[in-house]
Amino acid sequence: MRVEVVAVGTELLLGQILNTNAAWLGAELAAAGMDAEYQSVVGDNVERIALVFRGALARSDAVVACGGLGPTQDDCTREAVAAMLNIPLKRDEAVLDVIRSRFQRAGRPMPESNARQADVPEGARVIPQTMGTAPGLCIPVGEKALYLLPGPPAELHDMWERAVAPELRQRAAARGETASISSRVLRTWGLSESALAERLADRFRALEEAGGNPSIAFLASGIEGIKVRITAKGATEGEALSLLEAEEARVRELLGPAVFGVDGETIAEVVGRLLVERGFRLGVAESLTGGMVASYLVNVPGASAWFTGGVVAYDARVKRDLLGVPDGPVVSEDAALAMAAGACRLLGSEVGLGLTGVAGPDAGEGNPPGTVYVAAWGPLHEGQESGEGGDARLLHLPGGRQQVRELATISALDLLRRRLDSQVASRRR
Amino acid sequence: MRVEVVAVGTELLLGQILNTNAAWLGAELAAAGMDAEYQSVVGDNVERIALVFRGALARSDAVVACGGLGPTQDDCTREAVAAMLNIPLKRDEAVLDVIRSRFQRAGRPMPESNARQADVPEGARVIPQTMGTAPGLCIPVGEKALYLLPGPPAELHDMWERAVAPELRQRAAARGETASISSRVLRTWGLSESALAERLADRFRALEEAGGNPSIAFLASGIEGIKVRITAKGATEGEALSLLEAEEARVRELLGPAVFGVDGETIAEVVGRLLVERGFRLGVAESLTGGMVASYLVNVPGASAWFTGGVVAYDARVKRDLLGVPDGPVVSEDAALAMAAGACRLLGSEVGLGLTGVAGPDAGEGNPPGTVYVAAWGPLHEGQESGEGGDARLLHLPGGRQQVRELATISALDLLRRRLDSQVASRRR
Repeated sequence: MRVEVVAVGTELLLGQILNTNAAWLGAELAAAGMDAEYQSVVGDNVERIALVFRGALARSDAVVACGGLGPTQDDCTREAVAAMLNIPLKRDEAVLDVIRSRFQRAGRPMPESNARQADVPEGARVIPQTMGTAPGLCIPVGEKALYLLPGPPAELHDMWERAVAPELRQRAAARGETASISSRVLRTWGLSESALAERLADRFRALEEAGGNPSIAFLASGIEGIKVRITAKGATEGEALSLLEAEEARVRELLGPAVFGVDGETIAEVVGRLLVERGFRLGVAESLTGGMVASYLVNVPGASAWFTGGVVAYDARVKRDLLGVPDGPVVSEDAALAMAAGACRLLGSEVGLGLTGVAGPDAGEGNPPGTVYVAAWGPLHEGQESGEGGDARLLHLPGGRQQVRELATISALDLLRRRLDSQVASRRR
Repeated sequence: MRVEVVAVGTELLLGQILNTNAAWLGAELAAAGMDAEYQSVVGDNVERIALVFRGALARSDAVVACGGLGPTQDDCTREAVAAMLNIPLKRDEAVLDVIRSRFQRAGRPMPESNARQADVPEGARVIPQTMGTAPGLCIPVGEKALYLLPGPPAELHDMWERAVAPELRQRAAARGETASISSRVLRTWGLSESALAERLADRFRALEEAGGNPSIAFLASGIEGIKVRITAKGATEGEALSLLEAEEARVRELLGPAVFGVDGETIAEVVGRLLVERGFRLGVAESLTGGMVASYLVNVPGASAWFTGGVVAYDARVKRDLLGVPDGPVVSEDAALAMAAGACRLLGSEVGLGLTGVAGPDAGEGNPPGTVYVAAWGPLHEGQESGEGGDARLLHLPGGRQQVRELATISALDLLRRRLDSQVASRRR
């Protein structure tokens, strides 16, 4: 089934924001086994939106559009659909009630302009809004369908998963398209992209020669790790899945402990799970990452069970007075270890992480940008002053300030993951 | 003059990479005063590329395409143009020599596949390659023009600046169009998107009725604030700029202190600048945001001049022991103020921020997700135990966990901005 993505918004045409929604929807469509042959972007203009929708509906079986459903005057995707199909917009009282209640809960009256978000083209089905104020809309156009989703990514993702993806799969099945695509992402850390490629080179070639099913692709993704995506196609879901799983086993054997997670699983979630298994809690002391490690950990729901807190020791005096970092260079292995140990003491945790280094753009203590020390400390048991010691690593990270901070964050968490893993393994022996 | 961007590449459709080229070209076109009404993405397929080029040339005066000029089998933009216009591809010996010499300089023989990059559609003009191996191509189509540029951003930017932008400007001038577009983004916080829209509603309507020049658009952007973009068009750059500035003054008057920054300026940069002006340094104590405030501040180069550090007090015990938060509920105004004051003491700063609340998905201390207290404290002068007190705010923030944390971050920084601003103002009186 051919499904096409249309993103609406003048800010996209002007290059003021990146079209992350189209990329996200593209990846989702591929994962669902849909053919996505085109993407379009159009500004906030009734005639031009209608023109693009008409073209997309002519060449594809379904169109997923995002953006232009907001409360302000420039948001006109609803009006464009009404004009294109020559159908009226009707205010939906049930939708309006949801919008009003959202404002009530926030203790504010609903501005009159938000009422527009309850306007529904006649014959459209409402996809209820659970996060924002705009509902999604599914508009039947002959045998085809046009989905209108809000532009804010969280709302878009929610409606896609809850309503659009299941319905598109049903439509594909009803057309007798039972070809199924399964894909899985193995998340890795500790091998460079080229080292990964070398380990998989023979397998990669063998798959290509056998017709490219399953297939393997790499994607370096900053703090999310280097992703290895395996995609398999079969006549049925079961066939695709069994191809996929056999290939996953082969790839895992080639990559060993570099694989830390699967699909959406972040290294923060993996570390959290290991900490819960061992009954430890984590404290973090960070310098160049400036809170990024703590923030990434807290992004995991339920983090309070295994994360006590963090110290952002940006000032050298804070490193010394609060964390007990010894005099001397603060971009050093000793400083990283002292920070990790200090985090345990100060934050009452059994395990600690320390990060110190140079994010750039300028050098620090004579070290070029990208010079980073990460350390993992503990476990420190109650009443103990020093525990089982720690591990530290010197890293030379590429890229600008933000990338160095992201790569330092995942490197520190990976160091802790491997330390916790090996401790479990050594106890089991 | 209407110019349209087409990006070629299956990896874009699959969401494996972001379409940064289209965003970059969009911003460049706007700066050059060109109207960009549409963008398209199409995969590496001769028929579909030809279809998209044909559609784009029909509705625009020029098309700038990028990607699909590489040496591998899947790169087929050249072939698509030849097929669409029914013209042959001819190998250009001069272009081939440049490609060969590039490999020679790198000490490697030229792979046979790279010779394809010297294939030029009959009648096309070559834009010499100075960085990569693929030349750019300018193909006249009647009175219109189709530009083919390589996908690697550095090569694309080089050819755009060297050859395409100057030629498009000439074409516009030859058509008697000397129009120039200027735009500016005002970043705001403290008014909801709909409250902003209401304040600007009359002005919005007046501009629409007067022909839509200048124009105003809104964009809610999470931690980046709510953006109000003003765009003005004039016969000359000077005319566009003076229209823009007059409109900016009007909008600023309507929005008042909600405007915190311009264009790329973040609230972290604004707060940093205010702190430097006043000679204060900032320490941060955060709970639900878990390091996001500190991380956002550290993202500003040179933050070490005004940011001492932060404490992520995720555990209630850390809040009490380390920050001196009194017994009682930790989701409270008192706790937020105590955290802000504790940050000053602990981190040796004159000014402090405190954030406590419920990010979700579950309730906390009986408060629904989105209940957040932010507090700004200080300035605390050396040796002082308590300073000029603090400000606190109770917020009810919408959205999921990540959005609540982002909105809490910008809300806390905005509270500090207003506090620093008003203190400067009261001293000046």
